[in-house]
Amino acid sequence: MFTERIYNFSAGPSMLPEAVLAKAQSKMLNFGGSGTSVMEMSHRSKAFVDIFDETKTLLKALMGVPDSHEILFLQGGASLQFAMVPLNLIGKTGKADYAVTGNFSNLAMKEAKHYGEIHEAASSADQNHTYIPAQDQLNLSKDAAYFHYCDNNTIYGTEWNYVPDTGAVPLVSDMSSNILSKPMDVSKYGLIYAGAQKNMAPAGLTVVILDKSLLGLELSHTPTMLRYQTHVDADSMYNTPPTYNIYMLGLVLNWIEARGGLTAMERYNEEKAAILYDYLDESALFKACALPEFRSKMNVTFVTGDPDLDAKFAKEAGAAGLSNLKGHRVVGGMRASIYNAMPMEGVSALVEFMKEFEQNNR
Amino acid sequence: MFTERIYNFSAGPSMLPEAVLAKAQSKMLNFGGSGTSVMEMSHRSKAFVDIFDETKTLLKALMGVPDSHEILFLQGGASLQFAMVPLNLIGKTGKADYAVTGNFSNLAMKEAKHYGEIHEAASSADQNHTYIPAQDQLNLSKDAAYFHYCDNNTIYGTEWNYVPDTGAVPLVSDMSSNILSKPMDVSKYGLIYAGAQKNMAPAGLTVVILDKSLLGLELSHTPTMLRYQTHVDADSMYNTPPTYNIYMLGLVLNWIEARGGLTAMERYNEEKAAILYDYLDESALFKACALPEFRSKMNVTFVTGDPDLDAKFAKEAGAAGLSNLKGHRVVGGMRASIYNAMPMEGVSALVEFMKEFEQNNR
Repeated sequence: MFTERIYNFSAGPSMLPEAVLAKAQSKMLNFGGSGTSVMEMSHRSKAFVDIFDETKTLLKALMGVPDSHEILFLQGGASLQFAMVPLNLIGKTGKADYAVTGNFSNLAMKEAKHYGEIHEAASSADQNHTYIPAQDQLNLSKDAAYFHYCDNNTIYGTEWNYVPDTGAVPLVSDMSSNILSKPMDVSKYGLIYAGAQKNMAPAGLTVVILDKSLLGLELSHTPTMLRYQTHVDADSMYNTPPTYNIYMLGLVLNWIEARGGLTAMERYNEEKAAILYDYLDESALFKACALPEFRSKMNVTFVTGDPDLDAKFAKEAGAAGLSNLKGHRVVGGMRASIYNAMPMEGVSALVEFMKEFEQNNR
Repeated sequence: MFTERIYNFSAGPSMLPEAVLAKAQSKMLNFGGSGTSVMEMSHRSKAFVDIFDETKTLLKALMGVPDSHEILFLQGGASLQFAMVPLNLIGKTGKADYAVTGNFSNLAMKEAKHYGEIHEAASSADQNHTYIPAQDQLNLSKDAAYFHYCDNNTIYGTEWNYVPDTGAVPLVSDMSSNILSKPMDVSKYGLIYAGAQKNMAPAGLTVVILDKSLLGLELSHTPTMLRYQTHVDADSMYNTPPTYNIYMLGLVLNWIEARGGLTAMERYNEEKAAILYDYLDESALFKACALPEFRSKMNVTFVTGDPDLDAKFAKEAGAAGLSNLKGHRVVGGMRASIYNAMPMEGVSALVEFMKEFEQNNR
């Protein structure tokens, strides 16, 4: 039983800023004198449409989304995007390139194979996904309808440290676990998608940002709800969107803005990650999994080398209010997910706990 | 500005029980001593899996879902089910029957036409959907893979007053706007689906209850996320489900159970609807739209006959804390949605307001 809030290192759903939760709490039964909860508002009501518009406008401003691109608020998570991307985009040539740098990019590629000719343009499987292929290791196809990659690999703890140059072939990126963690040049992308439950909002919302010039090539059997065009035409209101999640995203975006926007978030995230990686590099017990130049700022994977000791660590840390540090089942070891909402104090507390654990378990 | 909560007659998203909102509010930052919000819990954590299991068990008990059927917690709303139903079920014969009794059943039929041979088994369009076709008006196909109908028509305010007898052809029903409003014999259905945002939980959750013997006939191009089998195999955890919505559904189910379950809800809903319909039948100004024997207990549609007066009524009612009474744009007039969470006091207040309005506007 914790009477105070713990530091939750879950990979997602994950921590939300405490100030955001407190704000949502205070307005739970009566939002802004409306006499209703945001959860109860018709998605077509003026009160909710105002929330929706403000959220979209703020996301556009914070990320610098150009007018060529549309922001969509959808459902189904990244897993549904694994199908929507090829269903909507592969029609141009019938072919697409995929880089495989982890579990989810591999699932994305497998799903796409149902809808066209898929070429594995790169893979880091040869070294258990501890690195990111370099630009000159990308085996690009000139006739690909798009190039797909996952910008941050939640399970393996790696992150692309460059934006791939694919010439005229549109870039499609799964940014579920690092969207809003730093500035990014949206104009370089044909399509960005992200499940909200890591850096944006509670689970149940999927954000898609797409270049409208890519629309109009859906495969004929694409369901209405899986056509981006449907949602562009209706401004994400073809049917009832996940209204409360959109409201929560708005609160998170306001929180980011008040802290200085994405440049400030990047600086803060780099500092947080450095504390942890610096300790890992000097520890005699713990070892970081990812190679230095490809290390994720969001998901820090590490091991002791002894699975029993790993389990002991995760258990004792949990009891001390540092929760969800057990690594994903496909890689084992530990994982500390330190998204935007994880405060510096949480990372410091973790490092202190690790030092103590190291001392007690040499 | 309302300092107290209003009566919200929205068709969905719609009112939630105040006790449910208050409970969620009190646990927003720290659920049951976990030190985290439910919004922040990993969907694979024991704390959340307990919530998930309790919610599913309670829904199964309240609705009397037989062991032959599986309960799924999905995303995308009823609109995505319009595609998932044919993609998963039409394969048996390539044909399906649809009854059209309103806007959404018509959209469901249109979507299904992409995936097989669709037969309109009945339609109430000839009388502007003010009635429900009788059993002997259903033109049933012996070789249909299923028969689809919408049990309650939110826009037109009609509700099926019987369960269609389709012999060996499985019944598929969209119950988005009347699920949990009364007991129903789930064993009679091959598949029931419902968007949660009317009688269950905040928008973003779709509940599907299906007979597992219907699985295994997906069309070959069906995306992984649109196969019911995917979600049955993973107990709705193939990817991150809308965790907070599931939690809220659990709170709503507990609230229903404490009030005596679905038999008690039915009695209460019948009483609420009777107060309103009785007044409509004696009023000289207002007139109910649906024919008496097909009137919905959930969505009460009515008109004055004068669109300007209708608009005046909705506006004045809104100012008096009786909100969202404007009818859907395709039918005009007024609509009072009185789902489970609308208290008797709300309906009484509406009738009192209508009487006053009638007196002032004869």
